[in-house]
Amino acid sequence: MTQISQSPAEAVIAALRPILGERLSVNDAIRQQHARGEDTTAPTTPDAVIFAETTEEVSRILALCHQHGVPVTPFGAGTSLEGHVNPVRGGISLDLSRMDAIEEVSAEDMDCLIGPGVTRQLLNDHLRDQGLFFPVDPGSHCTIGGMCATRASGTNAVRYGTIRENVLQLEVVLADGRVIWTGSRARKAANGYDLTRLVIGSEGTLGVITKIRLRLHGVPEAMSAAICQFPTLADAVNTVITTLQAGVPVARMELLDEVQMEACIRFSKLEGLAAAPTLFLEFHGSEAGVAEQAETVQGIAADHAGSNFAWAREAEARNRLWKARHDAYWACIALKPNHRGIATDVCVPISRLAEALLGAKEDIEASGLTAPIVGHVGDGNFHTVILVDQADPTALDRAWALDRQIVHRALALGGTCSGEHGVGIGKREFLEAEHGPEALAVMRSVKQALDPKGILNPGKIFRN
Amino acid sequence: MTQISQSPAEAVIAALRPILGERLSVNDAIRQQHARGEDTTAPTTPDAVIFAETTEEVSRILALCHQHGVPVTPFGAGTSLEGHVNPVRGGISLDLSRMDAIEEVSAEDMDCLIGPGVTRQLLNDHLRDQGLFFPVDPGSHCTIGGMCATRASGTNAVRYGTIRENVLQLEVVLADGRVIWTGSRARKAANGYDLTRLVIGSEGTLGVITKIRLRLHGVPEAMSAAICQFPTLADAVNTVITTLQAGVPVARMELLDEVQMEACIRFSKLEGLAAAPTLFLEFHGSEAGVAEQAETVQGIAADHAGSNFAWAREAEARNRLWKARHDAYWACIALKPNHRGIATDVCVPISRLAEALLGAKEDIEASGLTAPIVGHVGDGNFHTVILVDQADPTALDRAWALDRQIVHRALALGGTCSGEHGVGIGKREFLEAEHGPEALAVMRSVKQALDPKGILNPGKIFRN
Repeated sequence: MTQISQSPAEAVIAALRPILGERLSVNDAIRQQHARGEDTTAPTTPDAVIFAETTEEVSRILALCHQHGVPVTPFGAGTSLEGHVNPVRGGISLDLSRMDAIEEVSAEDMDCLIGPGVTRQLLNDHLRDQGLFFPVDPGSHCTIGGMCATRASGTNAVRYGTIRENVLQLEVVLADGRVIWTGSRARKAANGYDLTRLVIGSEGTLGVITKIRLRLHGVPEAMSAAICQFPTLADAVNTVITTLQAGVPVARMELLDEVQMEACIRFSKLEGLAAAPTLFLEFHGSEAGVAEQAETVQGIAADHAGSNFAWAREAEARNRLWKARHDAYWACIALKPNHRGIATDVCVPISRLAEALLGAKEDIEASGLTAPIVGHVGDGNFHTVILVDQADPTALDRAWALDRQIVHRALALGGTCSGEHGVGIGKREFLEAEHGPEALAVMRSVKQALDPKGILNPGKIFRN
Repeated sequence: MTQISQSPAEAVIAALRPILGERLSVNDAIRQQHARGEDTTAPTTPDAVIFAETTEEVSRILALCHQHGVPVTPFGAGTSLEGHVNPVRGGISLDLSRMDAIEEVSAEDMDCLIGPGVTRQLLNDHLRDQGLFFPVDPGSHCTIGGMCATRASGTNAVRYGTIRENVLQLEVVLADGRVIWTGSRARKAANGYDLTRLVIGSEGTLGVITKIRLRLHGVPEAMSAAICQFPTLADAVNTVITTLQAGVPVARMELLDEVQMEACIRFSKLEGLAAAPTLFLEFHGSEAGVAEQAETVQGIAADHAGSNFAWAREAEARNRLWKARHDAYWACIALKPNHRGIATDVCVPISRLAEALLGAKEDIEASGLTAPIVGHVGDGNFHTVILVDQADPTALDRAWALDRQIVHRALALGGTCSGEHGVGIGKREFLEAEHGPEALAVMRSVKQALDPKGILNPGKIFRN
């Protein structure tokens, strides 16, 4: 047997095949499925896809890849919007979706221990009988491992925090196969460097997350939703600012601009609503508490020209409202047949939100493209879904140009290029402008310290 | 002029003196004041104390110290309980207490930009007229820079989080004098490695914090306090667990054991209360909301044999109650003349809290020492104040032995050696047991990457 012409990836595949059997695949269709997420980046196929099932396997795989210098790109549900899962330098796509065990739930500690492949829907279905829930909700069918890797958040962050605030501990396999636990199961700890937060948002470039201990929350006694419409975006934003200052513990506070509302009204058949800037709100608490919160916000909204304030106390009406919000992306797509959507994702200090939004709207208008706006406005985070005509060869470039304009304005206003989708490939070009060369150099030095051979998700976060 | 016999520290002092004038001091009394914090570690004097006033100065000082390999130990208010500020290898004690400017407060963004020498009292006094407050309250006259460095928390963390959740950005001077900004002013960001959280809790070993952008909170419309007594610690703990599960947004929830209550009753002349396990509670919200919260908790307490439930709605009565809680340490000291107190600080998953507390009480009893217990029980964090007879040469060693027992039990129960006081010198011996050698090796590799010459607060967190 000669191995002279064997590439490093081939060597790893040959060593792992006897152990993993069919869970190591070089099948074209499977490799294509792992070539990109839900974004418009150029697909890049891995040499092989491995469906890992245990921490020990991940450790063994990484140790071998480290030895041979073979890139490893973690893969969850493939819902990335910024190219995180593209194996841009080939190697192994490490699919963790089968590591989906809910190993422990503690009602007393209000925490749980799960595999990275557990989705938030799976977890919340499991928790339903126990009076507990996991609040972080990016709205997609993502895995919680992927949410940790990209520092995800979503609609509930204004009250419950992002994934960052809801993770107690991580089991992480390092580049060379060593396995560590970060943090502490205790609710708080001043016990050395915060490796949990270092790994959260590191996008698979510092280690592979193999277990997660999450904080859970008690299901509130009562929930109610409300909707309110405004003549201008600024009125809606000022309602949000005043609500936050008043300390109303709003659970969700979402802004849809008039274009997005028009799309939602059509797509979700919402009645009695105008195509105007609109806030979708949700309140959690006691029966009396949610009523009081809704009244307070109604009063604040009225001070800012809000109208059509409507409550939905029953689960059915509430779910219909939030389904319309969650379907916002599909409502956008339905606006224009044969178009696809590119999601932008900036976040600014809330005092600059109206400016960022109005500026984005001007840019959209100047671009000639259609791009509804929807935002997690309590955090200062908003998305546009830029609709790209798949038949127009110039449309994609114009869409990226528009995205860049929106990002650069957000940076100029003291904001960030990514509120919750992460850096991946798509936002790398903005990192130096956002952080400065020295802070970026610190990030690189941490990367170098933890992954000296650069095998973990190469080509992400950093440009080289 | 000959410089042959000049030590590295002398070289740095000579270079800085013309720039800093009297703000660089080699005065014995000033060096002694910077030899330790409020703990019982052996004092170690620096070669010089520098009272820095600007980021540029800190940058220049670090660049010089880096060049000459001179240790730098940051110093704030000197309230450390774990030896953080001891310049164990001499060099420069970098006193940041004069960097106490409140540079910006934004009511709209509910944030502020401050120097590291600002204390929480100074900040809250400044904010009083603006309807905003900074909730993290370790109870001492510490600086917020020191709180960031040690990942401090205190009585409000159960509702408002620790300092970790309340910092948006840091300006940090790196070991070689480079200056970076971490994070983003946006409320959330998925924009690369979380350098903010990496620096928080790094105890001055990765960089010197020179500016802090903090999240602020709206002053609640209403606040009320309550107190409730229990026959056993387990009853009190179960009341806390049920309250958290019910989602009652308690702002403070503090447990005092019967020894601590006896001390407080005597010291603060509390009337109508027994020397029994007691919860001190505080509720924030609307008028109706705090009333509802108090009623809910009263009901839960009654289910767990709680008695003497008493409310304090007026500010005066509420302040008297919380003054008694804040004076708990002094009440302990007053129990035994000529004793000093050693504060322990463990945190466990809340399901194990009763076990940790009862185990600690057994250990205390077996030790023959007096050690009241007080805890931030909503987080699973508790302190004992071990009273040490200053005339008894064996007492200090027995106190440390007791501390070790309490820590080892907390670790065995899945907890941490430090809930909020940090590692410093005092907790270094437990870090490997808590994190394992590999995770500790990761921390060391990060330290090596950011401070290759080891000049920043050497001898802290890591044993060597």
